[in-house]
Amino acid sequence: MNSFRALGLSLGQLPPGKGCSICDVPGVRVGHRTLVRGSGPGAMRTGVTAIVPPGDPYAEPLPAGAFVLHGHGKAVGLWQLLHLGTLETPILLTNTLATFRCADAVITWVLERHPDARSINPVVLECNDGYLSAIESRPITEGDALAALEAAGEEVEEGCVGAGTGMMAFELKSGIGTASRRAGEWTVGALALPNMGRREDLLFLGRKLDLSGLPRVRREDRGSVVVILATDAPLLPEQLSRLARRGALGLARTGAPASPGSGDFLVAFSTAYRIPRKAVRVKVEFVPDYELGKLYRAAAEATEEAVLSALLSARDMEGRKGVVPALPRELVLT
Amino acid sequence: MNSFRALGLSLGQLPPGKGCSICDVPGVRVGHRTLVRGSGPGAMRTGVTAIVPPGDPYAEPLPAGAFVLHGHGKAVGLWQLLHLGTLETPILLTNTLATFRCADAVITWVLERHPDARSINPVVLECNDGYLSAIESRPITEGDALAALEAAGEEVEEGCVGAGTGMMAFELKSGIGTASRRAGEWTVGALALPNMGRREDLLFLGRKLDLSGLPRVRREDRGSVVVILATDAPLLPEQLSRLARRGALGLARTGAPASPGSGDFLVAFSTAYRIPRKAVRVKVEFVPDYELGKLYRAAAEATEEAVLSALLSARDMEGRKGVVPALPRELVLT
Amino acid sequence: MNSFRALGLSLGQLPPGKGCSICDVPGVRVGHRTLVRGSGPGAMRTGVTAIVPPGDPYAEPLPAGAFVLHGHGKAVGLWQLLHLGTLETPILLTNTLATFRCADAVITWVLERHPDARSINPVVLECNDGYLSAIESRPITEGDALAALEAAGEEVEEGCVGAGTGMMAFELKSGIGTASRRAGEWTVGALALPNMGRREDLLFLGRKLDLSGLPRVRREDRGSVVVILATDAPLLPEQLSRLARRGALGLARTGAPASPGSGDFLVAFSTAYRIPRKAVRVKVEFVPDYELGKLYRAAAEATEEAVLSALLSARDMEGRKGVVPALPRELVLT
Amino acid sequence: MNSFRALGLSLGQLPPGKGCSICDVPGVRVGHRTLVRGSGPGAMRTGVTAIVPPGDPYAEPLPAGAFVLHGHGKAVGLWQLLHLGTLETPILLTNTLATFRCADAVITWVLERHPDARSINPVVLECNDGYLSAIESRPITEGDALAALEAAGEEVEEGCVGAGTGMMAFELKSGIGTASRRAGEWTVGALALPNMGRREDLLFLGRKLDLSGLPRVRREDRGSVVVILATDAPLLPEQLSRLARRGALGLARTGAPASPGSGDFLVAFSTAYRIPRKAVRVKVEFVPDYELGKLYRAAAEATEEAVLSALLSARDMEGRKGVVPALPRELVLT
Repeated sequence: MNSFRALGLSLGQLPPGKGCSICDVPGVRVGHRTLVRGSGPGAMRTGVTAIVPPGDPYAEPLPAGAFVLHGHGKAVGLWQLLHLGTLETPILLTNTLATFRCADAVITWVLERHPDARSINPVVLECNDGYLSAIESRPITEGDALAALEAAGEEVEEGCVGAGTGMMAFELKSGIGTASRRAGEWTVGALALPNMGRREDLLFLGRKLDLSGLPRVRREDRGSVVVILATDAPLLPEQLSRLARRGALGLARTGAPASPGSGDFLVAFSTAYRIPRKAVRVKVEFVPDYELGKLYRAAAEATEEAVLSALLSARDMEGRKGVVPALPRELVLT
Repeated sequence: MNSFRALGLSLGQLPPGKGCSICDVPGVRVGHRTLVRGSGPGAMRTGVTAIVPPGDPYAEPLPAGAFVLHGHGKAVGLWQLLHLGTLETPILLTNTLATFRCADAVITWVLERHPDARSINPVVLECNDGYLSAIESRPITEGDALAALEAAGEEVEEGCVGAGTGMMAFELKSGIGTASRRAGEWTVGALALPNMGRREDLLFLGRKLDLSGLPRVRREDRGSVVVILATDAPLLPEQLSRLARRGALGLARTGAPASPGSGDFLVAFSTAYRIPRKAVRVKVEFVPDYELGKLYRAAAEATEEAVLSALLSARDMEGRKGVVPALPRELVLT
Repeated sequence: MNSFRALGLSLGQLPPGKGCSICDVPGVRVGHRTLVRGSGPGAMRTGVTAIVPPGDPYAEPLPAGAFVLHGHGKAVGLWQLLHLGTLETPILLTNTLATFRCADAVITWVLERHPDARSINPVVLECNDGYLSAIESRPITEGDALAALEAAGEEVEEGCVGAGTGMMAFELKSGIGTASRRAGEWTVGALALPNMGRREDLLFLGRKLDLSGLPRVRREDRGSVVVILATDAPLLPEQLSRLARRGALGLARTGAPASPGSGDFLVAFSTAYRIPRKAVRVKVEFVPDYELGKLYRAAAEATEEAVLSALLSARDMEGRKGVVPALPRELVLT
Repeated sequence: MNSFRALGLSLGQLPPGKGCSICDVPGVRVGHRTLVRGSGPGAMRTGVTAIVPPGDPYAEPLPAGAFVLHGHGKAVGLWQLLHLGTLETPILLTNTLATFRCADAVITWVLERHPDARSINPVVLECNDGYLSAIESRPITEGDALAALEAAGEEVEEGCVGAGTGMMAFELKSGIGTASRRAGEWTVGALALPNMGRREDLLFLGRKLDLSGLPRVRREDRGSVVVILATDAPLLPEQLSRLARRGALGLARTGAPASPGSGDFLVAFSTAYRIPRKAVRVKVEFVPDYELGKLYRAAAEATEEAVLSALLSARDMEGRKGVVPALPRELVLT
């Protein structure tokens, strides 16, 4: 169970999956590499999170789509993902200035498995953890990225781990959050990395919370959020892009403002079939659009809950510019 | 004041404009033509709403943008609006099957004023009122569309008028709603035509309401919503498209599901400058992106409130397939 | 054979289909309604062309896509076509100011066949024939549009007929042109309505022609072009949008400038399978992207040839503002 | 003069700029870093090319746009470029698997100049030189990328240098090519990195060349092309995206097939004004759309010529899998 459900909370119309995590979609694995070093101006509070699809995505890519709510971000790999409609590598999340080292590490990872690969399309997404972490010191190495991939397992650790280590949202400590929904015979899972919004923006299950007792963590009107959606429903790539759009509805319901400096990226993939690199025909029995209502609701609900669960799983953290407080649970449980 | 404010309600972080209506943007006018005829299977509950920008939009087009949250709709005029970045006619809202007659009427309207016009780009948006109205009887004529344009004034009548006459949202009677926000020195106004969602979807100021006492109005998982945003802030066309995107955040907060059969279209225009048809240079002093945070919040808040105000201004209506109940105010005021 | 092949010309790498026409795709039919009335300032030189897909597109929509090279046009129906990925009606081509009457006529046409239809998405595209035709007199009626649909057959008449009646391209008389290509086991057919470009822009099989002996037909830097592509290859909707993109390569090779006032729209549909309105699953065995090279070349070649064939099939025409000369065949055959 | 003009060739309707190079746009500089090492299976034939805009792009970003003709590529930085409409770093071109190391090097380059930068959006584009170069050995280092930036000057070296070192197009050796056009008072410059097409695809000034005397260089139906456009015309970001679209018309006229495995990316920026990072208003006097015809033609012509000039400036090159022949000049000059 995610941190949200563990507190007895619930949200939306659809039932959660067994673990209420993105790993409820069979075969999806998540791993973290967490860096917490030093304190003061040189403090490092950062990391890498890997979402690893089942099977061999390079030989047998998965159908995939994406939606960019606001594009102030450094996302890597989405042009090809959108034009081919496929995901051919694991997905990494990290901090803004580590994006390209992580992408380079994915090339290493694929070449180790496919030495004859000549074109590789890593997918890496990022948020900026520069309030708590000395982002410009660029501590993340290829080894860190590979370690996150290596660590991937079927349980999602939430909170201040991996890419979530130094993130904050709504001036509260954030981190990694996850959730899932059952939509008929299928499951939709979400993993969120929320790093957006000012205190006034937060909507917790639709409510404004009284955060006046907490220290302000001033920041400009920026911040980003990344969401990864996985499903076992047999959707076409373009339908997965539409699923990703519904994730944005869930973001909006948390109060995410999609502010001008925000990189709000959502990626969705399906494990239901493959588009093998050397196929000459691909058979699929897809769900036509008019039947997608439940899956759309599942994507919106799982995304909203994953964001809230990230807030609830995080703990106070001291870093470069001070302490970012976690969301006090008593505010939520009353 | 709109119907929402008239009940003493409020929403969001920013103050409303003087009338809390799209007409708070100076020069913007709104007119309705309402058709309520007959009862039973042939009942007509439909109409046309006109949003008229100031000045002569054909000679001196206004900068404009749009966002399509989900494109299951018959919207007319948005390709040219998006590629040229301009609005050159008033905007009409109506029912699905009247879209093209209304667009044709706008050609008439422009030719009356500019007999030498040879290319005209009407902007018409629609929702489907086929539950309450015999939409396939196609009662709307050119005269109705011209009457809505003729009726345009600086007060917005809300509720079951104009294009809103036969609409319903969340299985409640809907109609036309409006709202506005002040964002520093500027105003953002919204006019909404909500026609989306099942009862379970509604979020009223973030809350689920207990609608179990009301008769169900069963419908498929369809329905649409149209939002028009106006501002006096000097934004570039692409920035107006981004403003329209933030309207979608407001829609999401009302519970709008963007279901598979939904046409969720948002159009935004600015009255701050003109792009004259024969200009060889256009001077503008625009607000750069990093300064748009408040305007974005204004768009989201005004849109959410315009939808709720549409629900609060509507009254029970009997039509083709039965009665659609208005939202009981007591559910909201407790 | 189209007019281009009838002159013994050829183009590209791939072989043409049997008739070198869009009707080489089994089941696709084309019909025209031509209006040539009066002379002088009130001359009417206009019409409607219908492209009718096989079967009952409303009950069983076809997969479809589109590409907008430049969006200064009034195209109707493409938002839903793109978001649902389906074509549910015949496609009409006509003049700019008749767009919406034609769209309204398609509603009539569908309601005659499906009286219970409540949402209908006509697809209508247009170019501006205002040089030769008194476009502002708006002579096209619902009856004309229905007549074009009624006239649809398996032979494509090219030249100054239907929507092509009053069009011109590169300051030469244009009209309707068609062509097709074989791509392995499949066929790609194109129908073009070219109305773009100044004389200096024309590239005929890559060559500049010496048009100095012809009267100039002055016009602003505007003009549009519409292309419809049909195929029997089993492509996904998004792949059909990519096929339409390759049509734009063919346009470019004719010298089409995509000028600022140009509405350059390309629509593609497949007859290989259906997405029935009430299906809960749709089976398809699609061609994956890496196998699309030949189909892409077929789309580019068929489009280029369809444009040239439109020029070669047209005849001198006198209209509102004077005579527009046809391309002298001797310039091409030397 | 570029290699194309040096042979006495010309193309299009508009006059070239003084040097017929992207550096005809005042302040634009280009630099190369070339790696030619070893032979046989481990041969390295690769490099980096830098396009450096005038001034301090990080403090004062330039308006920018882009067009993706086909997105099978690893382009970095375009989401933010498109959503903000700005270019804030130099642009690097390199081989596919070096993309992310080059992007990481741009972060280093910016941090050296702006130690307080916390969010940096490098723009890096790539083609695959894996036929001539052992791309999987990943020889490009941060130092190479910085060397290309360091080498930037106001003369463009064409041919087998920088990112062009190992590229081929139409089964001929390719490289870096450049060209420019005067459009009234303004200049449009293009720099191309062509790496696309099979022999049968090539159109040289619209003509098929007889390449049967050359050895075939077999390859799959892949390959990419990158084009950078610069102008001193005061265009809005969205207009620069439209300018980039016209570059694609020029590509099409060379026979570029936009094949399924192709990453065809075009980026355009303007030097006419700045959008300073901390501005609260930006004044611009832009050219409205109807006046863009000449600039659009300039972009198409400069792009076509830059591709042809890349072919004419290249020389035979031996590499990993054999020799790729240059285009024999005698085929072109007859």
